[in-house]
Amino acid sequence: MAPGDVLDAAQAHGPAAASRAAHAAPRPAWINLVPTADVVRRAAAVEPDAPLAGVPFGIKDNLDLAGLPTTSANPALADAPAATSAVAVARLAAAGAVAIGKTNMDQFATGLVGTRSPYGACACVADPAYVSGGSSSGSAVAVASGVVPLALATDTAGSGRVPAAFNGLVGIKPTRGLVSTRGLAPACRSLDCVTTLSRTVGLGRSALAALVWTDPEDPWSRPRPPHPPAGVATTMRVVAVPAGPLDLDPAHAAAWDVAVARLRRLVPHVVEVDISAFLAAAKLLYEGPFLAERWAGFGHLLDPDGPHLDPTVRGIVARGAAIDGASVFAAQDTLAGLRRATDGTWADIDALMLPVTPNHPTRAEVAADPVGVNRRLGTYTNFVNLLDLCAVAVPADPRADGLPYGVQFVAPAFADDPLLDLAGAWCGEATPVPPVPGGSSLLAVAGAHMSGLALNPQLTAAGGVLRYRARTAPAYRLFRLNVPGVARPGLVRTGDGPAGGVAVEVWQLPHQGVGALLDLIPAPLGLGRVELDDGTLVTGFLAEEYATRDATDVTHHGSWRAALAAVA
Amino acid sequence: MAPGDVLDAAQAHGPAAASRAAHAAPRPAWINLVPTADVVRRAAAVEPDAPLAGVPFGIKDNLDLAGLPTTSANPALADAPAATSAVAVARLAAAGAVAIGKTNMDQFATGLVGTRSPYGACACVADPAYVSGGSSSGSAVAVASGVVPLALATDTAGSGRVPAAFNGLVGIKPTRGLVSTRGLAPACRSLDCVTTLSRTVGLGRSALAALVWTDPEDPWSRPRPPHPPAGVATTMRVVAVPAGPLDLDPAHAAAWDVAVARLRRLVPHVVEVDISAFLAAAKLLYEGPFLAERWAGFGHLLDPDGPHLDPTVRGIVARGAAIDGASVFAAQDTLAGLRRATDGTWADIDALMLPVTPNHPTRAEVAADPVGVNRRLGTYTNFVNLLDLCAVAVPADPRADGLPYGVQFVAPAFADDPLLDLAGAWCGEATPVPPVPGGSSLLAVAGAHMSGLALNPQLTAAGGVLRYRARTAPAYRLFRLNVPGVARPGLVRTGDGPAGGVAVEVWQLPHQGVGALLDLIPAPLGLGRVELDDGTLVTGFLAEEYATRDATDVTHHGSWRAALAAVA
Repeated sequence: MAPGDVLDAAQAHGPAAASRAAHAAPRPAWINLVPTADVVRRAAAVEPDAPLAGVPFGIKDNLDLAGLPTTSANPALADAPAATSAVAVARLAAAGAVAIGKTNMDQFATGLVGTRSPYGACACVADPAYVSGGSSSGSAVAVASGVVPLALATDTAGSGRVPAAFNGLVGIKPTRGLVSTRGLAPACRSLDCVTTLSRTVGLGRSALAALVWTDPEDPWSRPRPPHPPAGVATTMRVVAVPAGPLDLDPAHAAAWDVAVARLRRLVPHVVEVDISAFLAAAKLLYEGPFLAERWAGFGHLLDPDGPHLDPTVRGIVARGAAIDGASVFAAQDTLAGLRRATDGTWADIDALMLPVTPNHPTRAEVAADPVGVNRRLGTYTNFVNLLDLCAVAVPADPRADGLPYGVQFVAPAFADDPLLDLAGAWCGEATPVPPVPGGSSLLAVAGAHMSGLALNPQLTAAGGVLRYRARTAPAYRLFRLNVPGVARPGLVRTGDGPAGGVAVEVWQLPHQGVGALLDLIPAPLGLGRVELDDGTLVTGFLAEEYATRDATDVTHHGSWRAALAAVA
Repeated sequence: MAPGDVLDAAQAHGPAAASRAAHAAPRPAWINLVPTADVVRRAAAVEPDAPLAGVPFGIKDNLDLAGLPTTSANPALADAPAATSAVAVARLAAAGAVAIGKTNMDQFATGLVGTRSPYGACACVADPAYVSGGSSSGSAVAVASGVVPLALATDTAGSGRVPAAFNGLVGIKPTRGLVSTRGLAPACRSLDCVTTLSRTVGLGRSALAALVWTDPEDPWSRPRPPHPPAGVATTMRVVAVPAGPLDLDPAHAAAWDVAVARLRRLVPHVVEVDISAFLAAAKLLYEGPFLAERWAGFGHLLDPDGPHLDPTVRGIVARGAAIDGASVFAAQDTLAGLRRATDGTWADIDALMLPVTPNHPTRAEVAADPVGVNRRLGTYTNFVNLLDLCAVAVPADPRADGLPYGVQFVAPAFADDPLLDLAGAWCGEATPVPPVPGGSSLLAVAGAHMSGLALNPQLTAAGGVLRYRARTAPAYRLFRLNVPGVARPGLVRTGDGPAGGVAVEVWQLPHQGVGALLDLIPAPLGLGRVELDDGTLVTGFLAEEYATRDATDVTHHGSWRAALAAVA
């Protein structure tokens, strides 16, 4: 689906029709609605060529919309209309989108189920016996049921991705700080992310383009860096899945296997990685001292005699009051260690595909064990903000029983653009690969010039950009050369290399940079043509054969990075 | 002084002589010493062409040296020799430096005075009535008294910079995470920095080059980014000093004025900025919940019946036990807001020159009010790690009473290299400006291409590097143009501009990038020759005069960034 088509579909029914549909079935998906007359008036004032002109949208009820209250699903807050709109809401409106109303949610955004609301429990659009997922439950139901094409959600622990997966939607959780949280009622201030729910990656992406803004008045806002961060490639071709067994219910496990098979058809390289450090980080969010941040954010609203409070939410968050400061610092220290432990994982892959949840519980299962069922749901989502990652949940093939099923792609902070390209390709939406600009060349590097290694600054200083990760054709072998200075390998076409080839990074460099680089290359190394495993030929580093005779063959490690790690 | 001369001076007396000098007057600067026979044996094993070959060094006693105990100035820890050396210690040794012994310090690195030690109070080398400063007191005294040319220190709140300033030394506090803290007894784990003390910038810098390493086993270690961060220039020419009155004792105030006058002779642009957000952040470290991190780090060692504990240190840190987790998150939220508030300050300047301390107290003044005097000492140093900045304390002209006096240069994270160039220039050490590489040009930008503004990605994508900030000659005026799209100014040589000129950034671009950029420039803009206020001519953006007739003159704002801020 081309971008223009996406917008056409989103605008198809228009704000007035969306408003009437929302009024016809307002609960439990909606908590408060903008009067249809106001919607019509605002829609009439939209510039026709605004980027989101006439796209109706819902707003999770922890984000301010001027004129309606922001309840966070706590009726005690229902009497005070917001004076101004949240920055995210105002930016969508400025881009031409038209707000329809405020959506239901797990109270105080504390929950992944969609049942923790005095305004009623939301259900999965495909089968009302199953939960909708949450905490952005109403936003997901409003989009999945076709009332609006787009809704704002939030995602601290998975609150955007879980209901997306349970209702067949795209849930974009951008890098923390790209979208202002000013006007958002806090869950965990340092982790809260404003996110989108939509049926297509294209529409979510158009909304994100309107949302991204560095807000000087939001403490947690931060700008995109001027260059892609180290190791983030323009195009994602190496996607990892977890090694070893996963915690998945049988129906989810079968759907996961189908998704992995689909991934293998989509990208050239699917590899397996250990995700134990990610899972350990996930446990810190609800089982550790980060609960104190929820207490700091809205503990003052948890009046023990308050009539509207969800008892499960209050029970969880009240534990935050008893946490001491030293435990918080100790947990942040543990988290820093886990973040370092995951750094190595990202060195060799572009993205990680993961389940969104281990299972899809029924409303009855949640009622029987509200805390335990909810906790398990966050297994694969809780760690994403703690580890400063971006993520997008996408619909996968439905389960055998017909329930919607979703997976998520996860990548380091500020890899949002290539991650959304990958998600778009998964969804069958066109994501054209940008051409190599005139005056530039592709250059395959297999050794010390790779991201994060000793000679990589030679590429970045020359204006180089990492285009993609790949592997050579099977004909090559890699040798640790006997050269002075920085440890370097030599890639040689011996004709008898392993089937899996050798890991390379393909960089784009201006011709001038290639020329300057060539001046720095000592014998026995040089630049020649390297064949990649898809048959393409690019310029790349090669070694002369003579120098391999007293060198160590390290081909079996599969990559120079792995060969270095084996020595260290 | 050329780099080779610096090393010659550092090696002049050799490890054996340094060891004998340390044994002759071991206390209170030294807590434990390596036997001279061992020093001689290790010195004999050093590779003669190692970068720090034969440089004797002292080690603050919170960093492990294999074979000696690490006491953190707590004699209760004096019986357990460390099995291995801290990473920082091992890296200096691997670079050829030779450890002489362990130096005295404020207990648990909690203090800026140098008097909080059961091993004795250190005094200023110039006058024993005055404190040495701390917590790295012994390291400073050992270097300033000429026993060793180099010492390792640590700096969480100012513990490296304060004793440097009080004893006429260079104290380098690099960006957090560049030097591993593995093997360091924690003060505040997330903020602790290993630092250097030396008499010259050159030797400290050589040591830093050996120390910097990304440690996969240190949770707080982090790599240098592959590109300079946004707004960090290769050469620092715009240095700010605080606007408005400072908290300084009279003798310090007079010395500060001399230092500011010296700065005006050193760099072309000295500007004034509001530092209130920096000062507010400083107060969080000892007056707020960050004390809980000290409690988390070493509270278990503060046995109330322990015989060797400094009562002031115990009194301060024990307050950390009572701090609740929600307060920690609230303080971190406040800190994030203050960090955002300082972002704008860095957009227009390269570095900040600040006093290191408001005063230089006597030992009697500290004894009379140990907490109050210490707290005031951290006014200008406490915020540096909290706000993720790098800093270097350098000797300035002594006070009128002859006491040593120092100032500090402060800059954003990862600006270490240009900051040390500036510090070297201040100290009269040669810091040659790197030439513009062949095939590249300098390009002055005055509008939307400046760091952080809308069109800056056109420069970074073309391989551009920010060389320096400057101002135009007085002949220019700046106009807000009537152009569609991104708001852009036009710079025009009218001949009647203000004396201060207009702010520009001078970027280095490969010729290919300049050509590509030219294709993107719409009328009435183009590239011509721009005269800077030092008379140099560089290529730069200019506007055609005709387009200014219906444009707004914004010259009086002094910069395009200020003109944009005035509208927002």
